[in-house]
Amino acid sequence: MIGAESLVRTLIASGVDACFANPGTSEMHFVAALDRASGMRSVLGLFEGVVTGAADAYARMTGKPAATLMHCGPGLANGLSLLHNAKRARVPIVNIVGDEATYHEPLDPPLTTDTEGLARPVSAWVRKVKRTEVLGSEAAAAVAAARETSGIATLILPSDVSWNEGGVVGTPLPVPPRSKAPDESIREAARVLRQREETLILMSGAALSEAGLMIAYRIASATGARLSAQTFNTRVARGRGRYPIQRVPYFVDEAVKENAGVKHLILAGTGMPVTFFAYPNKPGMATPPDAKVHVLARTEDDVVDALARLADELGAPDVPVADRPAPDVRRGRITPEGASETLAALLPDSSIIIEEAITLRNFFFNALTNAAPHDSLENIGGAIGAGPPLATGAAIAAPGRRVVGVQADGSAMYTIQALWTQARENLDVTTVVLSNNKYAVLFRELAAVGATPGKTANDLFEINRPDLDWLRLSESMGVEAARAETLDQFADLLRYSFARKGPFLIELVIDRG
Amino acid sequence: MIGAESLVRTLIASGVDACFANPGTSEMHFVAALDRASGMRSVLGLFEGVVTGAADAYARMTGKPAATLMHCGPGLANGLSLLHNAKRARVPIVNIVGDEATYHEPLDPPLTTDTEGLARPVSAWVRKVKRTEVLGSEAAAAVAAARETSGIATLILPSDVSWNEGGVVGTPLPVPPRSKAPDESIREAARVLRQREETLILMSGAALSEAGLMIAYRIASATGARLSAQTFNTRVARGRGRYPIQRVPYFVDEAVKENAGVKHLILAGTGMPVTFFAYPNKPGMATPPDAKVHVLARTEDDVVDALARLADELGAPDVPVADRPAPDVRRGRITPEGASETLAALLPDSSIIIEEAITLRNFFFNALTNAAPHDSLENIGGAIGAGPPLATGAAIAAPGRRVVGVQADGSAMYTIQALWTQARENLDVTTVVLSNNKYAVLFRELAAVGATPGKTANDLFEINRPDLDWLRLSESMGVEAARAETLDQFADLLRYSFARKGPFLIELVIDRG
Repeated sequence: MIGAESLVRTLIASGVDACFANPGTSEMHFVAALDRASGMRSVLGLFEGVVTGAADAYARMTGKPAATLMHCGPGLANGLSLLHNAKRARVPIVNIVGDEATYHEPLDPPLTTDTEGLARPVSAWVRKVKRTEVLGSEAAAAVAAARETSGIATLILPSDVSWNEGGVVGTPLPVPPRSKAPDESIREAARVLRQREETLILMSGAALSEAGLMIAYRIASATGARLSAQTFNTRVARGRGRYPIQRVPYFVDEAVKENAGVKHLILAGTGMPVTFFAYPNKPGMATPPDAKVHVLARTEDDVVDALARLADELGAPDVPVADRPAPDVRRGRITPEGASETLAALLPDSSIIIEEAITLRNFFFNALTNAAPHDSLENIGGAIGAGPPLATGAAIAAPGRRVVGVQADGSAMYTIQALWTQARENLDVTTVVLSNNKYAVLFRELAAVGATPGKTANDLFEINRPDLDWLRLSESMGVEAARAETLDQFADLLRYSFARKGPFLIELVIDRG
Repeated sequence: MIGAESLVRTLIASGVDACFANPGTSEMHFVAALDRASGMRSVLGLFEGVVTGAADAYARMTGKPAATLMHCGPGLANGLSLLHNAKRARVPIVNIVGDEATYHEPLDPPLTTDTEGLARPVSAWVRKVKRTEVLGSEAAAAVAAARETSGIATLILPSDVSWNEGGVVGTPLPVPPRSKAPDESIREAARVLRQREETLILMSGAALSEAGLMIAYRIASATGARLSAQTFNTRVARGRGRYPIQRVPYFVDEAVKENAGVKHLILAGTGMPVTFFAYPNKPGMATPPDAKVHVLARTEDDVVDALARLADELGAPDVPVADRPAPDVRRGRITPEGASETLAALLPDSSIIIEEAITLRNFFFNALTNAAPHDSLENIGGAIGAGPPLATGAAIAAPGRRVVGVQADGSAMYTIQALWTQARENLDVTTVVLSNNKYAVLFRELAAVGATPGKTANDLFEINRPDLDWLRLSESMGVEAARAETLDQFADLLRYSFARKGPFLIELVIDRG
């Protein structure tokens, strides 16, 4: 058996059943091996960012790693920014990066670069496999490392290691369960909560699952503590029937104001509420510097278990989540409130929301609180262009569920090639492009640092001249599209898209001021 | 003066007059400073690959570095693959990468990553500036390093270093001239050439300028040596009136066959003719293993000087380049030969050809040999998606000259956002998309490694289902476009585009077999 086949069979045996791929010459044998084994779905992306972002969402929705297939250091480089996001999302991914043959690389052919060096900033595990005999066992180790660390494993595969005979299918390795928070942390949190001083329980990760939120709500109801999610999160259970968790605002002034009175900060599966950026003469943390910090569960711990033990320690009774009325479809002129309420009114049950729209995100967040139950995946690492690839991967991972991208126009352009994969795979993705023709956030950030935009700044922040024609752009890659210039049209287009299979794009014309 | 202003003023004083930018929050003060200083043209790219690829071409055409402006590690990551190409092209670039404030980064905000680690594989000089007072002098050092090494200098700029007062404009630093090849190398090459055994003079870099080629032709005529360029080169002077330099074929069998008899290999400003990839049971070098290698000039030496000294040493007389007839416009069905002849017949004088079309490149190369005089920029590092950004940067660097991209469809999709910048800046770029709906090279490579394509391989190598609609895609970003289904149409569209200002895209429907 050649190395490539042992690799593919090991991945499949280890539970990896999807491969997001953008292959090149060095990966030929891997591709051929995909045809000889069964049990791996291969999905082509026209750009590596599509591949890595899709693998991120796949892991968020299934809890298990997908493989990526990329070509040499430069191919990996194109996927790195969305691997950064995946690292921050703490999800498992197994990258397979084809590379020059071991005996050819010393000759320094054109694609030679420090592939391991490129992989390291985003990877928990990086290994370049030098011998065919160990490729299978290394692949098993890669999958185990990705799962154990909830992180990224990058296996660099020289082409001769791939094509040589001598491959041995690796035995899947066991993955230990998540660590438990120590009893002392539970007791300490309970002690703090019983004092009934102003306390914020800051949550992320699995604490934001439906189960985690229900337990946290018991704790909050019993103690008067306030609950909040981090500003951005990997996956949040939202909509009616779920506890309506709030989150730390993105803009620093709002975040600081909201948390000004916090005396105790309890961290449940997350770190401190650090602001995205520093600004002159503004704090870098959403909570006051003198708030006392208590770690209930570290990021790597089983936070749902920790919350459950805390609720029991407090004797906190079950609390039903109050019914909330569904929003109404709105009519007339497009406003951020009206658009988000309309989407929330029409959102199908069990949808997946992918939101990447920094200046308008609160409108959608607020309205969707009362939508049908759904999951929300967010851009947690800040590398932009996450939305279209995440939507693609989520749809592959969760067939039968509608995926809705709430997508800023500027961000969409980084990875717009994802639309083509959505068309090819006929994925149930509805992309709502919030078309305002500018990097709106940058005008706001420029003001935040005390500068006024001159001609150059305007040139660099406006993405009109020419306007992007979203309908043609979408249709050019096989995704039907239409423009909404009123809320009535928006509602009609949402209904149309939600009633049928396959992808659709709506250009929502908004805030051209 | 704040740091950002000292940085911008230092760059301008050091001769950097163009900035290709995709800014984010950390770069706000730099953007504001661009408005306070004059002498720097700022060009927005909607994706960082556009920015870095354009800077590469700018340097190829002007010989001097442009600045790039990117946002944090993830922004740099998106530009890395085309920086890899720029490194291989040995051109100067100065990257400005905004980053988290020095005091905020230790809090590990979401965009934090090892920005220096990401920069290092492509950079000759990497420095993270920690104090505003030295930002100007570090910027001067960055420009000098880029120029001296013909490489990439990456200056990482924490936002507080940018916004703090205390900036001092840096003094431009002198750059030493290129090293001269030692006399011994000249004499050794002359001795070899006088033996009149089968000798290949392999050239790259400045040896492929009009002056370099003329001198090399003198040497070849006087000695019977054969001249060849590397497979891919930074910039080649081509067309009528220039010596019609050949190049080492990309496909290894052709390359080995062509050079089978070579006894002596003289390297003129380049390394060995290493093949792009290794293949089972095939050599990794285009010349025989027993050919004797002689270094006339290293990559970093002044190769034109070395060639001139060698020609003088040999007493080689001037040789006029023979007149060659211009190709004819062809008619009828589209064939690779017909299309390339037609382009060559109509190409305006002083055009710039950007070719990224691996399976069809020889057709265009051969036909363009007899076109009007032009420069050719090639994808020298193998990271694909180089074409559209290179075309964009070349047009910014050389106003008044027509830029023609000969562009494979698969490659174009990696960085297609470049079209928008071409429209915004009204650049004289004509993009000819060779539309065959597949990664044709991969079918060829799969065969080369001895595998036959199964269903998965076909799925991963064909980029139809859906077909890309190039006209809509181009028009969506403001670039007028039309389809050529015959050579007559192709000729008409080329004439139309060449007769007017601004960008245009032609979908050349080719080889759908």
